Amino acid sequence: MNAIAGVVQGQEATFPRAEYDGRVARTRAAMEKAGIDVMVVTGPENIYYLTGQQTPGYYTFQCLLLPVDGDPVFIIRQLEYFNFIANTYQSDARIYQDGQSPMKLLAEVIRERGYATRRIGVDKNGWFLSPAAYEALCSQLGTVHDAAGIVESQRAIKSPLEVEKIARAATYVDAGMRAGLASVRAGASENDMVAAMMGSAIAAGSEYVGMEPLVSSGPRSGVPHGTWRRRMMAAGDPAFLEMAACHDRYHAALMRSAWIGTPLPEAVDMMKVCQDALAASLDAIRPGVTCQEPHRVCQRIIDAAGYTDSFRKRLGYSIGISFAPDWGEGAILSLNEGETTELRPGMTFHLPPALRLYGRFTVGVSESIVVTETGCRVLGTIDRALHAVAA
Amino acid sequence: MNAIAGVVQGQEATFPRAEYDGRVARTRAAMEKAGIDVMVVTGPENIYYLTGQQTPGYYTFQCLLLPVDGDPVFIIRQLEYFNFIANTYQSDARIYQDGQSPMKLLAEVIRERGYATRRIGVDKNGWFLSPAAYEALCSQLGTVHDAAGIVESQRAIKSPLEVEKIARAATYVDAGMRAGLASVRAGASENDMVAAMMGSAIAAGSEYVGMEPLVSSGPRSGVPHGTWRRRMMAAGDPAFLEMAACHDRYHAALMRSAWIGTPLPEAVDMMKVCQDALAASLDAIRPGVTCQEPHRVCQRIIDAAGYTDSFRKRLGYSIGISFAPDWGEGAILSLNEGETTELRPGMTFHLPPALRLYGRFTVGVSESIVVTETGCRVLGTIDRALHAVAA
Repeated sequence: MNAIAGVVQGQEATFPRAEYDGRVARTRAAMEKAGIDVMVVTGPENIYYLTGQQTPGYYTFQCLLLPVDGDPVFIIRQLEYFNFIANTYQSDARIYQDGQSPMKLLAEVIRERGYATRRIGVDKNGWFLSPAAYEALCSQLGTVHDAAGIVESQRAIKSPLEVEKIARAATYVDAGMRAGLASVRAGASENDMVAAMMGSAIAAGSEYVGMEPLVSSGPRSGVPHGTWRRRMMAAGDPAFLEMAACHDRYHAALMRSAWIGTPLPEAVDMMKVCQDALAASLDAIRPGVTCQEPHRVCQRIIDAAGYTDSFRKRLGYSIGISFAPDWGEGAILSLNEGETTELRPGMTFHLPPALRLYGRFTVGVSESIVVTETGCRVLGTIDRALHAVAA
Repeated sequence: MNAIAGVVQGQEATFPRAEYDGRVARTRAAMEKAGIDVMVVTGPENIYYLTGQQTPGYYTFQCLLLPVDGDPVFIIRQLEYFNFIANTYQSDARIYQDGQSPMKLLAEVIRERGYATRRIGVDKNGWFLSPAAYEALCSQLGTVHDAAGIVESQRAIKSPLEVEKIARAATYVDAGMRAGLASVRAGASENDMVAAMMGSAIAAGSEYVGMEPLVSSGPRSGVPHGTWRRRMMAAGDPAFLEMAACHDRYHAALMRSAWIGTPLPEAVDMMKVCQDALAASLDAIRPGVTCQEPHRVCQRIIDAAGYTDSFRKRLGYSIGISFAPDWGEGAILSLNEGETTELRPGMTFHLPPALRLYGRFTVGVSESIVVTETGCRVLGTIDRALHAVAA
């Protein structure tokens, strides 16, 4: 162990060193298969997966330069260097100061190490590598190849240590969702609901999540992907609650619905369809089945009930490591039509079937799950009813 | 007003229509000056500034296609369309379904409208336009020009309506920071502190912020940009608290320090330097002074006290509209050496001088301010002492 100015190497690392060594070895094998000699890893999730490095400051440039052979090196802003020491077992880093060009430094390191003539890859689908930075890299080094999916394909199947983190996160989600449901009442605001949800999840143990809770009430809940904006709840209102929590940046998520007073008959009917669709989808999950199969099971139930127009989205998406602005790993794996990847033990998903009458209300119910040897294990413990609150 | 499937145009809009019309007109004038005929606006902050559109779902592609003449059009995922109607006064949108290519749709719209032969610009420094999307655009349309800074330069000076939002956000920050400081005690965890900070700020009125609170305790506080991870606080511990809150996506931020028991003499000394540097910097802010001047004032005080090595960063950064992963507008304007832009009334900044002994502790103190006709107005109301907590 090194200690740099009082910060001990790996003092905040999430996993033992061997976990990272295995990940790097498998990623290198995948790079060789894809014909990439050196990868410039820029996505904060992929960086965290391979090294343990995490910082809220990923709005400044950082990257892992990973060759198929030889030592990896990290490029990082000076302010973030101590974080890197604390979070990782890797001491080899090159530092730039504010005002210096990180792309120039990266190109220098690539040349110094003799990588300039080799096949260099970046994740072209990723965020946090701006077009300007990408063009600067290409102008210094010539063609840069697409390495999208190489790290992601490793991340899709979670190790037992990773599943443990997601299961822990699910207990924080349960705490937050219980507090959120308990806060729904006439005279409380959407903000009171979210303060209860986030406050409880964080007090239970959660870190910061990749995306805000999706929480709304009354007719506002009938607008997809809206979230809280201080509306006061009243008798007769629906409330829509969806949130994630995380442990060591591994996420679990959950969606539930509540109603103040007697729910509209359509809402009761739509909720029943969501509950049935979720239950049937969960029954369809087991190793060897393709990702689109549970989606089709869900879609069939929704179609049969006449709500085809209200459900034009995927059944679910992979969950795991996330940094803002998303809490899911939908770019890695979706439960959707056309997705023919086979389910395997250790894959983890959030399945949120929801139905809405636009501008009026949304109802929905979800679970976070892990695929097991024989089916799947549901990680949350909150009952799936439409939660009725006295008006 | 149009109503689309029960969602009324502009029902959730932040400002009156005239505010957006003025912004678009000024942006078009800046585009003409820069020789850009059509701008593909992809940054969520810039999109929000020009249209009012906001969604947590900006991890899927969205853009505003803004010509210097003629009607703008929005490109958006189907699920986000109703959000767009609710948040904006603009009904002209083109929708893609999950599984379809948004870049293909964008190129089609550009061709249909006859823009393909005109000078098209994108913000090449922005996030959320991946290298793959950028390359797809170039391969369909040829050269795409750099339009970085065109919208940002409009955003740097806030209108009275915008200042009002930031001042409101500052009251939420005050509520969160007061609760956070009150939660510091031996036997409480870092998570308890953050649950108090975020819970109180959200209950007071805040929406979701662009970046998590930066909160740590004990020796963890000596690692820059770390944040809470369940550590229990004990007698003798420092606590470092920095957070933002927002109203209608306009942010204010604040940093404070606390100590359980008698603070180390070095900490008291370092805090005094931070307080003096902040006060002197604030005194140096007035219209006509360049951005680097308050930074130099701060740096001189820190250098004179012998802490040059502990302060290698800018004094502050612009604040305003933010979406994750940052709560600041540092890419627009910084208070830093070499920044020669003149301060003007309506500019808003967060100034967080902090000093640290790496691996041991950090202390710091900050204010969010707006530049006025004669100086600056401090938006927060929390005293700047090193908050002493009984051990």
